[in-house]
Amino acid sequence: MSELRKDPFLERWVIIAEERGQRPTTIQAADTAADRSTCPFCAGNEAETEPEIFAVRDADTAPNGPGWQVRVVPNRYPALRPDAPDVAAVEENELLQRQPGVGHHEVIIEGPHTRSVSEIPTPEFAEVVGVYRERYRTLAKDDTLRSAVLIKNVGAAAGASIEHSHSQLIATPVLPMLLQRELVTAAEWSKRHESCLWCSWLATEQTAGSRVVARNDYVTVLCPYAPRFPYETWLLPTQHASHFEHADDACVEVLAEMLHRSVTAIERCLGEPAYNYVVHSAPLGESTRSDYHWRMEVLPRVTRVAGYEQATGFYINPLSPERSAQELRAVF
Amino acid sequence: MSELRKDPFLERWVIIAEERGQRPTTIQAADTAADRSTCPFCAGNEAETEPEIFAVRDADTAPNGPGWQVRVVPNRYPALRPDAPDVAAVEENELLQRQPGVGHHEVIIEGPHTRSVSEIPTPEFAEVVGVYRERYRTLAKDDTLRSAVLIKNVGAAAGASIEHSHSQLIATPVLPMLLQRELVTAAEWSKRHESCLWCSWLATEQTAGSRVVARNDYVTVLCPYAPRFPYETWLLPTQHASHFEHADDACVEVLAEMLHRSVTAIERCLGEPAYNYVVHSAPLGESTRSDYHWRMEVLPRVTRVAGYEQATGFYINPLSPERSAQELRAVF
Repeated sequence: MSELRKDPFLERWVIIAEERGQRPTTIQAADTAADRSTCPFCAGNEAETEPEIFAVRDADTAPNGPGWQVRVVPNRYPALRPDAPDVAAVEENELLQRQPGVGHHEVIIEGPHTRSVSEIPTPEFAEVVGVYRERYRTLAKDDTLRSAVLIKNVGAAAGASIEHSHSQLIATPVLPMLLQRELVTAAEWSKRHESCLWCSWLATEQTAGSRVVARNDYVTVLCPYAPRFPYETWLLPTQHASHFEHADDACVEVLAEMLHRSVTAIERCLGEPAYNYVVHSAPLGESTRSDYHWRMEVLPRVTRVAGYEQATGFYINPLSPERSAQELRAVF
Repeated sequence: MSELRKDPFLERWVIIAEERGQRPTTIQAADTAADRSTCPFCAGNEAETEPEIFAVRDADTAPNGPGWQVRVVPNRYPALRPDAPDVAAVEENELLQRQPGVGHHEVIIEGPHTRSVSEIPTPEFAEVVGVYRERYRTLAKDDTLRSAVLIKNVGAAAGASIEHSHSQLIATPVLPMLLQRELVTAAEWSKRHESCLWCSWLATEQTAGSRVVARNDYVTVLCPYAPRFPYETWLLPTQHASHFEHADDACVEVLAEMLHRSVTAIERCLGEPAYNYVVHSAPLGESTRSDYHWRMEVLPRVTRVAGYEQATGFYINPLSPERSAQELRAVF
């Protein structure tokens, strides 16, 4: 059974999930080369996954068989479980804090076998992004959860262990360190300026122009001023919006299109890079917040996270965001 | 020329170092397989590096030729330079902060060609650790610097681009995000408890016992309660000490021995894993601090830093520190 433990120096939670050690690919290098006949995420192999939680499927088809377009299942090697038993509180004190590994760890299987979302046709991809929002909406109703983070890992260097295009949604009863940190910075900014930090920043970036890749009434795509990675790209709602799950259908559709074009543009610049994308959203179960602004980040993983970055959070990036944005604009 | 830029959401600095893009191995997968005849760090190939800054060498030998045991040179593709020209402050405002890439990026070459420090005999390794301290002492005199971080990358998965055993020392005019965060937590703890956070924690861990790998009057070796990685191991001075550069000769000798034994034990458990080690020390140029405690971390890189960890700082670790410590104790 997994548990959450807190590092008292950074107030950083970690998940100790010994069951995940059983994943053949977790320890030692992952080989994501696909043998499609045995891919557990392909249609026909539904029995290879846990029973589905949710699916977009043809009207006359039964759960856990073919006929689906998007399928959500619990991770077979979950970092967290909704029904995790209580952790013995033997050592708990101010310096050794732990909690049961309660939470959700879902896998969203994104249609037929493809490596990257750029291979998924745009209308189908809009359906996929709609399922992301649907799962956020459902998890937001669970009072035990504080945060949900949707992530995609493509390629071994980005942490993928299965090639077939899928995302994961991890929902936790505590806030991740970096979200907690952002909430503090954002609250300080709002107090001083009576505005959302990201809204102020979007206005500044819009004026500067050099890092903006694309923009419309719904979504702004840009390379952030202090990026960790070459071609790092963020997508934010152009108007203030704190929670991804509150996005309306029109926003989801535009987001899907802009995200698809962003990944495609990055792949035109870099070949077939490993990449992650991630949804950053305000804590679950709140109504609208004036001081947080949700976003998606696309993180190409062509540079390695070496000891320095790992230990300090201080990244060394060999490509400026102005150059990244210029190249991405040219192929967007 | 490189520059420092600040992410306003996390107050996280990054280094934009476009020169490093010229490193053949920076972008795309690094191949560290060694052709020793052309290794730029081997004796006889001194002309392949920048001129040496410091060396431990035989009395009758000249700089930048053979006859050295440990050699310190500037990184050929530096993230920072002591003489970086001023960055044009065109865009600087509260949300778009940047600074010139002033700092030091040194490489410490650790004797004849080996892959891992476990292959270096212990007396020679004590000399290497003595050079780490020597460089901290020198950089601590530079008023422009706030922090120095010594790191080692072994193996491509840990970010190494050259096999020959070496470390890097990166000194910056700003504090790395995670050090800044620790200083805040530590100050709060000290205010509440009138003690050093790490000293309190070491006492708690000593009582618990299950995560302690080894301990003597100088150095305590343990697996932290909330580790990011399997077999993650920390080494701390057993008595309070804030700055690595203040360590005396006896401490350096014991640290070298315990670090050597820690890496060797990890390799006995994991084969020849990629790993990092890192020195965490209080800000440079201060006298002793009562609320910070220096340490070294050894980070085996056998699990991947996937999208979730990258984006949230929330790590998923498939091995408990109690099990790690138990296995390490058995072979220490």
